[in-house]
Amino acid sequence: MFTEKIKENLKQIVGSKNVDFKKSSLLVYSYDATPQFQSLPDAIVSPRNTNEVSQVVKLCNDNRIPIVPRGSGTNLSAGTTPLEGGIVLLFKHMDQILDIDEENLTITTQPGIITQDLIHEVEARGLFYPPDPSSMKISQIGGNINENSGGLRGLKYGVTRDYVLGLEIVLPNGEIIRTGGKLAKDVAGYDLTRLFVGSEGTLGIITEATLKLIPKPETKKTMLALYQNIDAAARSVSAIISNRIVPATLEFLDQPTLQVVEDFAQIGLPTEVKAVLLIEQDGPEVVVQQDMQQIAQICEENHAVEVSLAKTAEEAEGLTTARRSALSALARLKPTTILEDATVPRSEIANMVKAIENIAKKYDVTICTFGHAGDGNLHPTCLTDVRNTEEIERVELAFEDIFHKAIGLGGTITGEHGVGAMKSAYLHLKVGEAGVEAMQQIKNAFDPNNIMNPGKIFAKSERKRVVVSS
Amino acid sequence: MFTEKIKENLKQIVGSKNVDFKKSSLLVYSYDATPQFQSLPDAIVSPRNTNEVSQVVKLCNDNRIPIVPRGSGTNLSAGTTPLEGGIVLLFKHMDQILDIDEENLTITTQPGIITQDLIHEVEARGLFYPPDPSSMKISQIGGNINENSGGLRGLKYGVTRDYVLGLEIVLPNGEIIRTGGKLAKDVAGYDLTRLFVGSEGTLGIITEATLKLIPKPETKKTMLALYQNIDAAARSVSAIISNRIVPATLEFLDQPTLQVVEDFAQIGLPTEVKAVLLIEQDGPEVVVQQDMQQIAQICEENHAVEVSLAKTAEEAEGLTTARRSALSALARLKPTTILEDATVPRSEIANMVKAIENIAKKYDVTICTFGHAGDGNLHPTCLTDVRNTEEIERVELAFEDIFHKAIGLGGTITGEHGVGAMKSAYLHLKVGEAGVEAMQQIKNAFDPNNIMNPGKIFAKSERKRVVVSS
Repeated sequence: MFTEKIKENLKQIVGSKNVDFKKSSLLVYSYDATPQFQSLPDAIVSPRNTNEVSQVVKLCNDNRIPIVPRGSGTNLSAGTTPLEGGIVLLFKHMDQILDIDEENLTITTQPGIITQDLIHEVEARGLFYPPDPSSMKISQIGGNINENSGGLRGLKYGVTRDYVLGLEIVLPNGEIIRTGGKLAKDVAGYDLTRLFVGSEGTLGIITEATLKLIPKPETKKTMLALYQNIDAAARSVSAIISNRIVPATLEFLDQPTLQVVEDFAQIGLPTEVKAVLLIEQDGPEVVVQQDMQQIAQICEENHAVEVSLAKTAEEAEGLTTARRSALSALARLKPTTILEDATVPRSEIANMVKAIENIAKKYDVTICTFGHAGDGNLHPTCLTDVRNTEEIERVELAFEDIFHKAIGLGGTITGEHGVGAMKSAYLHLKVGEAGVEAMQQIKNAFDPNNIMNPGKIFAKSERKRVVVSS
Repeated sequence: MFTEKIKENLKQIVGSKNVDFKKSSLLVYSYDATPQFQSLPDAIVSPRNTNEVSQVVKLCNDNRIPIVPRGSGTNLSAGTTPLEGGIVLLFKHMDQILDIDEENLTITTQPGIITQDLIHEVEARGLFYPPDPSSMKISQIGGNINENSGGLRGLKYGVTRDYVLGLEIVLPNGEIIRTGGKLAKDVAGYDLTRLFVGSEGTLGIITEATLKLIPKPETKKTMLALYQNIDAAARSVSAIISNRIVPATLEFLDQPTLQVVEDFAQIGLPTEVKAVLLIEQDGPEVVVQQDMQQIAQICEENHAVEVSLAKTAEEAEGLTTARRSALSALARLKPTTILEDATVPRSEIANMVKAIENIAKKYDVTICTFGHAGDGNLHPTCLTDVRNTEEIERVELAFEDIFHKAIGLGGTITGEHGVGAMKSAYLHLKVGEAGVEAMQQIKNAFDPNNIMNPGKIFAKSERKRVVVSS
């Protein structure tokens, strides 16, 4: 299928420097940040512009060759693994900011820019792009859009979807469409913009995006609240919201995670407590001051054993950076780290954390839990070793239980990481068979030859987690 | 097609009291708030629950009978007119709030509730549902969701889409699906929730919605800025945003609209000026005070001839109510009022207002312009008479020019009213033929028999505005 002629055609389209067939390169792009999923692509292709993307897509469509668009491969649901071979599409030549518009409060960018670089660019102009996935130091904005990435500021500011105003998209037939624009309001037909946000590269290739910006908050304060009891931490979360305060960030770390993060970051985090809330508020100085005072009081009323405000911006930055490093820190401990993102209504956080503890005990596996408490978006993280097949089976069963529990509490199987190949076997739990079918109809309508990131979102015939040995 | 047997079946499903075949009733539901579009349905059906909706839909699908879901019929794009006959579906029995959840900040409701009633209910608990279409006193939330309604607070708070967290939907095959939930984050598959928001009843019937709430702003202030020059008003809008202030409301009224609104509302609006900005800010007292001071200064720097703060809550309420009544006020003057909602990037407001003035002159028609300046969402409103076919032809040409101009300025054919039947002939201008085709593929996938609100969004073969004589 991947013939010499196709190789030649690819070289003609993007230039021979921008197609790579070397085994060593194919190996590099055979996996992403998700353990247990690996498969070799046939080529790595780096188009230089939308027109080249369109030609590559047409070639693939005509020849039934899979295409996997890939940002920096930080995906945690095996969403960027070339499970059926074909082409991995890189955006290293399409990484430019095209326009920052201070009157319309928008940024128009190519997909390949690093999220944090984009954030720095807009902040330098007193503007703000809130979505901040933990991977933002290396993730690309195109990947964020395809995954509808969340982050630590989701509680107050929403997720990537809430900031995408318009897209340029290459459809699976090679046609180029533009959706939305620098527009606060646009209801011209179906909302293709949001359909593509979070579609995990299965419907087309995003080649340009116009994103909404907001004014940068005047100031920010960061606080830690320590608990000897997970319930008390969860009650604090509920009480803060019930008191009509919506903090920018409201993160939870359990004791095992705290210990590991402190070992890694060495910034003096408390490791003797059962749970910590990391709380940030931003906005006008006077409002932040008032909110933080009230939050501190609410935490104390809910039996926080200590509440402390970061004294300097550096100390605050150290705390959030430590939180963002949780996955990296945990990953040092065992050969394999499997991080999930089951999400529940905020009011069910305590129930979910306790359920995770019980499930870990039941299957005798090690699970550390941290995450976005304000969003009900937890990251139960299992430390294991894929070579231990017997343990891995128990890990799989534990996660299956976690998904069922989350659904039972009114939650979802994935809050911000996407379905990918990893959770496709569980999608029906959340959306039902009729929901899966509706989604499949959209997929078939856009991509009848199933060339766009095949094997993702939709499970193969068998409703079971796909485990590919690595 | 609409046989006696079907009539009997409908009675069996919803009870004979809830099916109406009377000519007088059919006439009442033969039109909505859009002039020039009228067509008799075959029956008015009022199901009592989701299960009944499902059965009605199945019956219609099996017998190829069109269904037009209808809220209060305030639609301005002929979106709820039964152009191909069939059933008009009412939600008068499905108008209950099911749950207000103060911990998760959500409201779960049936579609038939009046928008303003919902807003009052949540505000009584110190919570806030921002989308506030001008029709909110009579519009239903189901209609708002189907149209992705905007409103006066869109600039700061976004539109209906930004508040819909989950839906219960009856698909055209009668299957019932649930999307989303009380969840801040959910990326389990394609975003069906946002696909259905703004789908104008063409993909399924929304039978329940979970909406996001936020804390009610502590206070609100309202200001009028008067101008003898439209450019100065537009420059003020740009300058406010460029100064990193995002007001809750930033409305524009031109002189003819002002005159008419004052005649109607009699609250002492200035009628001798060329343009007025109605500006509101909400939030913490101290921030609102500071923002309003700065906004006043910016308006004066940009040659406002007068800037005045409403002294009391009643005076402020009077001003926004007057603004909301603009359409009703204009509608008193001539037999026919055609209101459009071409939308441009905020920075192009002055160009668009001038273009509308020139187009009105060119075609010798009367157009008053008001709208959401902060959103770039204008409402050029033509006062005419459908019985004057010669003038109506010029009106049609004028609006065609307005759509082309909006697109030329990077805008869209509809900011918040939807495509409906009225603008279907222009959809390709915004999204391109490939975009229309992509949308049509979604429609075909969900509704292969085209029973759901047929004749809306997608134009018939000819690319021309459909004019149905009334």
